[in-house]
Amino acid sequence: MNTETAARLERQFRFLVEAERLKEVFRQTLNPHSRRYENAAEHSWAFALMVMTLAEHANHRPLDVLRVLKMVLIHDLVEIDAGDTYAYDAAGMVGQHDREARAAERLFGLLPPDQAAEFRALWDEFEARATPEAKFAAACDRCHPMLLNCLTDGETWRKHGVTYDKVVARNQHAREGSEAVWEHLARILDEAKARGSIGD
Amino acid sequence: MNTETAARLERQFRFLVEAERLKEVFRQTLNPHSRRYENAAEHSWAFALMVMTLAEHANHRPLDVLRVLKMVLIHDLVEIDAGDTYAYDAAGMVGQHDREARAAERLFGLLPPDQAAEFRALWDEFEARATPEAKFAAACDRCHPMLLNCLTDGETWRKHGVTYDKVVARNQHAREGSEAVWEHLARILDEAKARGSIGD
Repeated sequence: MNTETAARLERQFRFLVEAERLKEVFRQTLNPHSRRYENAAEHSWAFALMVMTLAEHANHRPLDVLRVLKMVLIHDLVEIDAGDTYAYDAAGMVGQHDREARAAERLFGLLPPDQAAEFRALWDEFEARATPEAKFAAACDRCHPMLLNCLTDGETWRKHGVTYDKVVARNQHAREGSEAVWEHLARILDEAKARGSIGD
Repeated sequence: MNTETAARLERQFRFLVEAERLKEVFRQTLNPHSRRYENAAEHSWAFALMVMTLAEHANHRPLDVLRVLKMVLIHDLVEIDAGDTYAYDAAGMVGQHDREARAAERLFGLLPPDQAAEFRALWDEFEARATPEAKFAAACDRCHPMLLNCLTDGETWRKHGVTYDKVVARNQHAREGSEAVWEHLARILDEAKARGSIGD
């Protein structure tokens, strides 16, 4: 192996070892089959599987599914430094993007420069939510925790006083990525509401 | 939304909800930053991130990275029914493929038929380890737990009496997917051996 390859691998593995910390970032969502709190690595996998399974329902097609999956796999890494900000915590969101941008700088900066730029561009694209790929990613990113909450009787929604209207207001931009997926989730949400899992 | 789309979404969500069980399948590997046992969903994410980061080092290029990532995201789902078989448990491996094939039948069978066939073909390709994509996936699948073991002082290797020679014998097929990644990992393994993390 030549020196340049060895140097790239050295940096890439430093990044991968640091990325392992995502397994220790816990979210405000319960896993449906055990009811323990989900971590951001588990979420990233389930979110990626959702993208792969539901890509046919994206509003804009053809969709570059490889780029969506790459965005998904790295989208939460910034939480290693910045922590998970709960989707319904308006106070916690103040300064969130700046904290996450600093984290992106440090974490992607562990990689070889060309790859750091590529990963940073993917993260920026995901955050800006302007391309069809980023809009579809955002749709699944919103729908995954909604689904888990509906499967766990809205326990963490109720704990945080999150009502039906708040859930709809916060997540309905998902329809920009996929009308069909949003419509399906909205039905699951209505059923959860009918069961009393979420308050008015 | 038309009836066919609604029916597809219904099946796809049944599959996604069932797939959530992968978070509760625990492996014989410790997460490096907390030393709790890794689950198969976390592993699938870390493995996919490794593929995305190291694809440039595959022996055969160009590589269809999208197909590799799809294989990775679904490769462990069969463990929901079949359980995790430890890589060094020869007795546990008896009948493993049959158990996993039955699991693949049930789990992918939750999806619409065309998609069930697609996911099953990806799993079969991963298992057969014959294409460049499957070989590179296998390389990362072997290297990820090796890396975690080296980062956690070989604790679970020692617990199961797994020696240096066994690790090399079991994992060196990784070089069929990437000579460079294998070479890098072999050096990390030698360093772990020098520190006494793994016995002769």
